[in-house]
Amino acid sequence: MTYFSEHDIEKLHHLYQINLINSCSGYKSANLIGTKSKKGIENVAVFSSITHIGSSPAMLGFFLRPTTAIRNTYNNIKETGFFTINHIHKNILEQAHHTSAKYSAEISEFDMTSLNSEYQNDFFAPFVQDAPIKLAMQFVEEYNIKANNTILLVGKITGLYINDGLIENDGFVNLSKAQIATINGLDGYAVPQERIRFGYQRPKQLTADN
Amino acid sequence: MTYFSEHDIEKLHHLYQINLINSCSGYKSANLIGTKSKKGIENVAVFSSITHIGSSPAMLGFFLRPTTAIRNTYNNIKETGFFTINHIHKNILEQAHHTSAKYSAEISEFDMTSLNSEYQNDFFAPFVQDAPIKLAMQFVEEYNIKANNTILLVGKITGLYINDGLIENDGFVNLSKAQIATINGLDGYAVPQERIRFGYQRPKQLTADN
Repeated sequence: MTYFSEHDIEKLHHLYQINLINSCSGYKSANLIGTKSKKGIENVAVFSSITHIGSSPAMLGFFLRPTTAIRNTYNNIKETGFFTINHIHKNILEQAHHTSAKYSAEISEFDMTSLNSEYQNDFFAPFVQDAPIKLAMQFVEEYNIKANNTILLVGKITGLYINDGLIENDGFVNLSKAQIATINGLDGYAVPQERIRFGYQRPKQLTADN
Repeated sequence: MTYFSEHDIEKLHHLYQINLINSCSGYKSANLIGTKSKKGIENVAVFSSITHIGSSPAMLGFFLRPTTAIRNTYNNIKETGFFTINHIHKNILEQAHHTSAKYSAEISEFDMTSLNSEYQNDFFAPFVQDAPIKLAMQFVEEYNIKANNTILLVGKITGLYINDGLIENDGFVNLSKAQIATINGLDGYAVPQERIRFGYQRPKQLTADN
């Protein structure tokens, strides 16, 4: 095994360090966040940090980096209160990843890629057409993570759209059937093919064999 | 598509709701967190919410549910300040998932599964033997998420162990080569086979063609 101490990590070349540390937590969710400014300019950007926070009420969170560069997604959410989460699937990997390029607030990534926006049920923020799972989200609160000055943004699910055939009898959504992607590091994508379910686990009884 | 409004989600049967909402954020990281109590009892538990927070300093966070039941992982971390993160890979899926069963604080999941603990470089908390990636973590801070009374726990990477052959020239760690798993919902696991990398994206020039 290769071992990196805290000191070793700090001394790594910047690009090597961000690739290593962004890969070492495991697979990440692959989503496009859609927003719209008050002026009406649509924005869509790839995010890999969207995380389950709770089922009831249904809430998700994600982290925004402390970049001093353009933060259109954050600004639009704070300005309007709404955003969408759209799953990245096999057919849009490259276009989805390109939304990580730093465009100014005046330019919509929908114009710079083949991704198309669409609107559902009068929701303010744009969804990504053809995404197999789409969520309408409302801003709830944010936390400043003091340790490194990032922001945790928490949102509530106010609408959920799921393609036909993906939901199993008990509510489980089969992501592999939808060819939904997962992210490895900063720029790696994989589309898992199969899934196995193990069910709810109960403690085994203590016996002499354990 | 199937559409669930906020009201529809609230009215779902509990098990259907937790399966649906736990699946709808996308793929999640698949990790075992290792801890040890002051009394010396080892604990290991599966977590799917470990998320990248920053590369420099190298920090990760994860969410703990507001369960009033046993929270050995949280208590041990608060008591001792240390934990480990160990990646779940193809050969230990079932054993890893069984650590989600609610054992009392007096029982170590290492005794109730075929998972083995191991110690490295005098680090206080136990690692999981054979995990292809292992992280030594130190508690930094925690946030109470008011919206649903969960906790975000933030830790610093103080040591990183990666199996030979997984790190590419630029620091990218190839998770698929290690047969590392990703989690779908509460109990679904997939082991992605291939990965594609798209590289760092720069804005395209605006032309008449865009």
